[in-house]
Amino acid sequence: MRWALLIEYDGRGFAGWQRQGALTTVQSVLEDAAAHLTSGQPVASTVAGRTDSGVHAAGQTALIELPREIGARQLRDALNFHMKPHLVAILAAAPAPEGWNPRFSALKRTYRYTILNRPSRPALQAGKVWHVPHPLNAAAMQQAADRLLGKHDFTSFRAAACQAASPLRTLDRLDVRRTGDRVEITAEARSFLHHQVRNMAGTLKLVGEGHWSPDDVTRALAARSRAAAGPTAPPEALCLIGITYPVDPFSPPDRGSPTAA
Amino acid sequence: MRWALLIEYDGRGFAGWQRQGALTTVQSVLEDAAAHLTSGQPVASTVAGRTDSGVHAAGQTALIELPREIGARQLRDALNFHMKPHLVAILAAAPAPEGWNPRFSALKRTYRYTILNRPSRPALQAGKVWHVPHPLNAAAMQQAADRLLGKHDFTSFRAAACQAASPLRTLDRLDVRRTGDRVEITAEARSFLHHQVRNMAGTLKLVGEGHWSPDDVTRALAARSRAAAGPTAPPEALCLIGITYPVDPFSPPDRGSPTAA
Repeated sequence: MRWALLIEYDGRGFAGWQRQGALTTVQSVLEDAAAHLTSGQPVASTVAGRTDSGVHAAGQTALIELPREIGARQLRDALNFHMKPHLVAILAAAPAPEGWNPRFSALKRTYRYTILNRPSRPALQAGKVWHVPHPLNAAAMQQAADRLLGKHDFTSFRAAACQAASPLRTLDRLDVRRTGDRVEITAEARSFLHHQVRNMAGTLKLVGEGHWSPDDVTRALAARSRAAAGPTAPPEALCLIGITYPVDPFSPPDRGSPTAA
Repeated sequence: MRWALLIEYDGRGFAGWQRQGALTTVQSVLEDAAAHLTSGQPVASTVAGRTDSGVHAAGQTALIELPREIGARQLRDALNFHMKPHLVAILAAAPAPEGWNPRFSALKRTYRYTILNRPSRPALQAGKVWHVPHPLNAAAMQQAADRLLGKHDFTSFRAAACQAASPLRTLDRLDVRRTGDRVEITAEARSFLHHQVRNMAGTLKLVGEGHWSPDDVTRALAARSRAAAGPTAPPEALCLIGITYPVDPFSPPDRGSPTAA
């Protein structure tokens, strides 16, 4: 049976999603846990977004196939048990819709990049934010972010290692919002290039600090050269918030959330 | 010169606030950092709330006295530098108002206790929440919480080790609010007994699960016996949010927060 999984993890404990030899990755921890349910027979998973080392997820999705019958809650609980003590949790398991592929069926991916913008380094938010001590102008960052919306060749914001066939992507949303000393950048697109969100965040930070203008961002985009845009922002402030599908695999089937008021 | 300090810390790295021999405590890390500014001469601190081991703070306040002249921002930055790599940060330093004492001048202490109420254990919020897998009825918890408001003998919610002269306290606020799978309990009082918030949280959880009624909480309070109330909830879900004073020592003097939009 094919199962859709909704997954949360703290990226600090993992060398990214993808299995890499003996390294601890989310994929290896998940697949090793699933193998406990198949008498040790290997279980392969496919995933919506192969997050980099250090990047968090609040709503990653993946697909696994299991030969034996099992209930959705029982599967969720068994995987959570076998993945201990790693900081990864299956939030929901549901029978995968016919033809559903976590990667190719996705309509939209939502990422959030969080900057802690205050003089003092983070204590409670350590490992979850990018610490930028100098005051950022969030309004200017939003103006610059607007220049990146729509369909563009994002070569300037693409990692050298990016394996995508085309540098064309359509950016549907790039919001910059300040709440107290946090500046959150929310990015949505059907798909992103490798490091695209972190490269956009690193560039918007230059604008927020006043080093760059929104026009500089327009020029960087037009240059189609990675060297023309800002530096790659650090991974631990990035979180994959969720993936949107034509039909949410985890609803109406019970996500196991409490319903009491 | 007497300095008021506004302090944030992740309680997991400390054996509580108070200095205890060779243990790493917030007080020892702070005072040792301050001694770097006095050529090694010991610096004593007094604090608003001596948090227990594992308990976090977003707005703890303390007082230190330094013989030499120093600017507020310079003091903040120097202390933050010398407290590395411990997860504690001085958010603001300000000249202490005449006669100000962080403990005795306090009008109100605000604590937040956070329950993660979902079947799956925490990953992103690990170490910051109490995981309660069974659905909690937050409305019933609020009804029970209301029974504890006002001036009472809180012996039933007081740790055996509590050193307060009187078990009488006036509870000004005890709010229970659900946001998605988080149930946050916010407690405010001029002062609390030792473990009072955690003992109230452990008792409200019994109500939320349906094991206790609000009337059971009224009876537990009236019994004036620790054995009559619920268990002590774990420390890592508790955070000291802030202390209220007649005049905020950190305002109008600049808290060092960014002012750009």
